[in-house]
Amino acid sequence: MTYTITIEESSSKKQKPADHELGFGKYYTDHMFILDYDKGKGWHSPRVIPYQPITLDPAAKIFHYGQSVFEGLKAYRTNDGRILLFRPDRNFKRLNLSNARLSIPELDEELALDALLKLLTVDQDWIPSSEGTSLYIRPFIIATEAALGVAPSTQYKFMIILSPVGSYYEEGIHPVKIYVESGYVRAVAGGVGNAKTAGNYAAGLKAQEEASEKGYSQVLWLDGVHKQYIEEVGSMNVFFKINGKVITPALNGSILDGITRNSIIELLKQMGITVEERQISMEEIYQAHQEGTLEEAFGTGTAAVISPIGELHWRDEQLIINQGETGELAGKLYETLTSIQLGRIEGPKGWVVELPKS
Amino acid sequence: MTYTITIEESSSKKQKPADHELGFGKYYTDHMFILDYDKGKGWHSPRVIPYQPITLDPAAKIFHYGQSVFEGLKAYRTNDGRILLFRPDRNFKRLNLSNARLSIPELDEELALDALLKLLTVDQDWIPSSEGTSLYIRPFIIATEAALGVAPSTQYKFMIILSPVGSYYEEGIHPVKIYVESGYVRAVAGGVGNAKTAGNYAAGLKAQEEASEKGYSQVLWLDGVHKQYIEEVGSMNVFFKINGKVITPALNGSILDGITRNSIIELLKQMGITVEERQISMEEIYQAHQEGTLEEAFGTGTAAVISPIGELHWRDEQLIINQGETGELAGKLYETLTSIQLGRIEGPKGWVVELPKS
Repeated sequence: MTYTITIEESSSKKQKPADHELGFGKYYTDHMFILDYDKGKGWHSPRVIPYQPITLDPAAKIFHYGQSVFEGLKAYRTNDGRILLFRPDRNFKRLNLSNARLSIPELDEELALDALLKLLTVDQDWIPSSEGTSLYIRPFIIATEAALGVAPSTQYKFMIILSPVGSYYEEGIHPVKIYVESGYVRAVAGGVGNAKTAGNYAAGLKAQEEASEKGYSQVLWLDGVHKQYIEEVGSMNVFFKINGKVITPALNGSILDGITRNSIIELLKQMGITVEERQISMEEIYQAHQEGTLEEAFGTGTAAVISPIGELHWRDEQLIINQGETGELAGKLYETLTSIQLGRIEGPKGWVVELPKS
Repeated sequence: MTYTITIEESSSKKQKPADHELGFGKYYTDHMFILDYDKGKGWHSPRVIPYQPITLDPAAKIFHYGQSVFEGLKAYRTNDGRILLFRPDRNFKRLNLSNARLSIPELDEELALDALLKLLTVDQDWIPSSEGTSLYIRPFIIATEAALGVAPSTQYKFMIILSPVGSYYEEGIHPVKIYVESGYVRAVAGGVGNAKTAGNYAAGLKAQEEASEKGYSQVLWLDGVHKQYIEEVGSMNVFFKINGKVITPALNGSILDGITRNSIIELLKQMGITVEERQISMEEIYQAHQEGTLEEAFGTGTAAVISPIGELHWRDEQLIINQGETGELAGKLYETLTSIQLGRIEGPKGWVVELPKS
């Protein structure tokens, strides 16, 4: 595909928030990227334009039938002033896997990455540099055809927006308390659980809200069929260290193929630690806890990187893990992965992509 | 709640399409209704305004996390010029049940119905009168806060748009061929299958698309746990007539509590026909077909009212039902229900609401 990405620079620049005010996903940069799709014409008109509201017909399919996919990744500013991305090729590859599941036309991954680099170049002054901060990148596709028939849209918009962020969890790397959810279900085999699509997140809100009211940060999702096997925690993948080995749920079709998950597995293998990707039940976790072999538990995701789990609430029992403290392995993985992402140490080949100097 | 619905009339009126051009959900009337929600302020500013695009920040939650609900109902123009609605109170009640599941603030049902009547009064010339036509009404709520954290939105818009429609299925009341879906799953117990929310429809597109390619109109969804029990057909509820009795899946939490479904059950009871709301497996349907006792099958929904099923494809077998013709009962129910909706015969008390003359 040949294409030219046009750039229209904003005439007025917004005031940038101070790093300590950032939070997560509250501020947006001066520009955004848009690519349109029309049936018969394909994806067209790639452009970087000033960040601005989008205008849609009230009948646009995104408002009614949720046909959409998204991604999340981060750009980091290194101490020596370079700008780094972490495995962005994986995000656009996964976006296309989500597209296939949601009947959205395939996107040119090379164009998408090129678009991101151009947008980052224009807005690079927005990448914060304080410890723990980064520029969160949100590529997403929405169905825009104004038609109420239930069928795939004939029109879409692919967009990338950028948001300077602090830490996703205000508590930082401190352990969180997790509620094991036995009622609500996030996804089931045959559904869209392995696609990064809006509906999965909407479906999780209620359980999250009820867990919050009970004093828990997130829920741990069990499988929809047996309500026994562990799937994800909040919107993160989850890992358990039992008796020196690390176990994480296998990619079974109903959980997300996390890029942080994949990277952590790789790092663990390099560290010589056995990793098992398999079905794992809450009963097994409970037994390990009773026997004193449940050493650590943690979630992984782009926003939080690593989120240690200090407590699991399951069936009226509180399972305190590692005395409620951040485990040694979780801490080490967090340190290693963030150091790779920040260019402080070298990671596996291809993980870090540097933004070319403009 | 006290409120005043303001009305801003459009200065220019669109040209109305001819009745035979209508199709489904392709044309929209001259006005729409909007009600805003802001946390701390509640629902506010109810207004009928000219139909127009809506402008949202690209970070609006609807684009990313699918927090939305909707409804669908119809207004009919009778032969003697009255305008009738069919059980609209049920739609707004169900909208609030969907709201509760999706962590969206409760709506004042009385205000919603009042808003609909005002909007209909303004746009009543858009209600078509040819046989089979009606004005489709789409109330919906979308999360509009510009924030990327995964949490319920602090801002929403409730809107009502109107679309003059012909028949949902171009084939009309003719029987359709249905593919029994054994791979993809629409919803599972503990999920959002009983809420009318965007993600359920996005999740069904792929299976629908694959069924279409194989020559089927819709899929029949099986339960996500056992992949045995019948849930819905396309986006309709489903009924089977076996040996003189009518069976429909019970409201188990993963299927929609259809207003047409409820009305059909009521009509069947009045006709003295036994209706069983219970779990029903494909195996049972198959056995009944083999034994010659599967007399009819049909879907029910607002768009199609009744959609007879002439053929089911299951595990490489074609089950032809009633020689592929519209069954006597399906035909009678269609005739009865549409006659009630069109004010030609009297239905149960409260089913039909007439738009007050303006």
